[in-house]
Amino acid sequence: MRDTITLYQHGTLAMLVAGLFEGTLPLGELLEHGDTGIGTADSLDGEMVIVDGQAYKVQGSGKVVPLTPDTKVPFASVHFMDAQETRSLVGVTDEQLKEQLQAEMKMDNVFVGVRIDGTFSHMHTRAVNKQVRPFPNLTAATRVQPEFEQDQVSGSVVGYFSPHLFQGATVGGFHWHFINTTRDFGGHILDFTVNQAEISVQVLENMVQHLPITNTEFRAKNMALDSLNKDIDEAEH
Amino acid sequence: MRDTITLYQHGTLAMLVAGLFEGTLPLGELLEHGDTGIGTADSLDGEMVIVDGQAYKVQGSGKVVPLTPDTKVPFASVHFMDAQETRSLVGVTDEQLKEQLQAEMKMDNVFVGVRIDGTFSHMHTRAVNKQVRPFPNLTAATRVQPEFEQDQVSGSVVGYFSPHLFQGATVGGFHWHFINTTRDFGGHILDFTVNQAEISVQVLENMVQHLPITNTEFRAKNMALDSLNKDIDEAEH
Repeated sequence: MRDTITLYQHGTLAMLVAGLFEGTLPLGELLEHGDTGIGTADSLDGEMVIVDGQAYKVQGSGKVVPLTPDTKVPFASVHFMDAQETRSLVGVTDEQLKEQLQAEMKMDNVFVGVRIDGTFSHMHTRAVNKQVRPFPNLTAATRVQPEFEQDQVSGSVVGYFSPHLFQGATVGGFHWHFINTTRDFGGHILDFTVNQAEISVQVLENMVQHLPITNTEFRAKNMALDSLNKDIDEAEH
Repeated sequence: MRDTITLYQHGTLAMLVAGLFEGTLPLGELLEHGDTGIGTADSLDGEMVIVDGQAYKVQGSGKVVPLTPDTKVPFASVHFMDAQETRSLVGVTDEQLKEQLQAEMKMDNVFVGVRIDGTFSHMHTRAVNKQVRPFPNLTAATRVQPEFEQDQVSGSVVGYFSPHLFQGATVGGFHWHFINTTRDFGGHILDFTVNQAEISVQVLENMVQHLPITNTEFRAKNMALDSLNKDIDEAEH
């Protein structure tokens, strides 16, 4: 049975911050836990978006590549889509939408899955470049990130709101990626304006944190927690 | 099938820190996810220990009370015991044991379940007093905590090592409770010296964070994350 109340996360943001970019879970196994989600690919090769059970990575070149089940991912979050509440959006920006959702849903302390399908009068994204070993840390890896913009684009926003308590394990607050309908434009969202769209929000009761416990590099790594929040602010926002 | 690779946690330490002491999950439901664990009871009424599927609370008076499945708990962690590795301990203190485990197991980044059965030449515990509404925050509630000591006591230490990344969601580092064999002494462990014992350690691949998403007090609460680490240090150590 599809578990529609659980956010499943493999790896942590802190692992990326520390430079652990190696894929540690096959996408096929990740997709047993959800058909919708976001993440990154092995070697930090792009921004991953999962819609309707199909994963894509948006690479630093802007190219969108569908991923096969054997692809390994270092960090990803998925859930099974089951919209508890949908509503129509017209003309709002991402900042206005965030404020609306937070004011109406009292969601500060819970995990929420979000998907928005429709047309966007503006969509502004970025994508990280693939890294090579020896891997730098995330701050260094994301210092230069190509940005992309399209107007009047139709597609899907997929992502999560996570309580700030879990900042470090994941991104606290909203974190969402985009992929267009023709699957040739997307990335980590910087900002957008909705033209017309439907939004689905799903409050998730469980957050499963799955860790690559047999990965020796992960087991031995010093996670440098003292500078974690500063590093995340620099890399993710 | 018993899931022996998962730590299941209901509620968060941050919720206690903020004064959310109301039980939000029946013990019967909690025990579907594990037969071994620790936590606290409704209204912060004591230190909970779960061994072999039976839960007890050690109250501020020192009294040990077995709990029934309808008891509600605000915060608890459980797993199904399946010792992957056991070893004998003779004459070590809790501090020596922690150092040994961390040095040998490279456990800093993973969740580990621990159970120690045997005799202890010294066991020093404390237990929190039941609180009444309007609930104070955890720092105020734990300012005065009765302490208990016994020598040459046999019983079980139950608890977890959690990565410091998850400090706030839970207690980062080691957190363990004790209950003696005759079920009339125990509590939150301050320190101990093993006489002779067997220790079982279990590296857990998943941490399920379950949240009381339908509890309106929880949904509306400001978690005061800025002072969280300071508050935890004051209340838990």
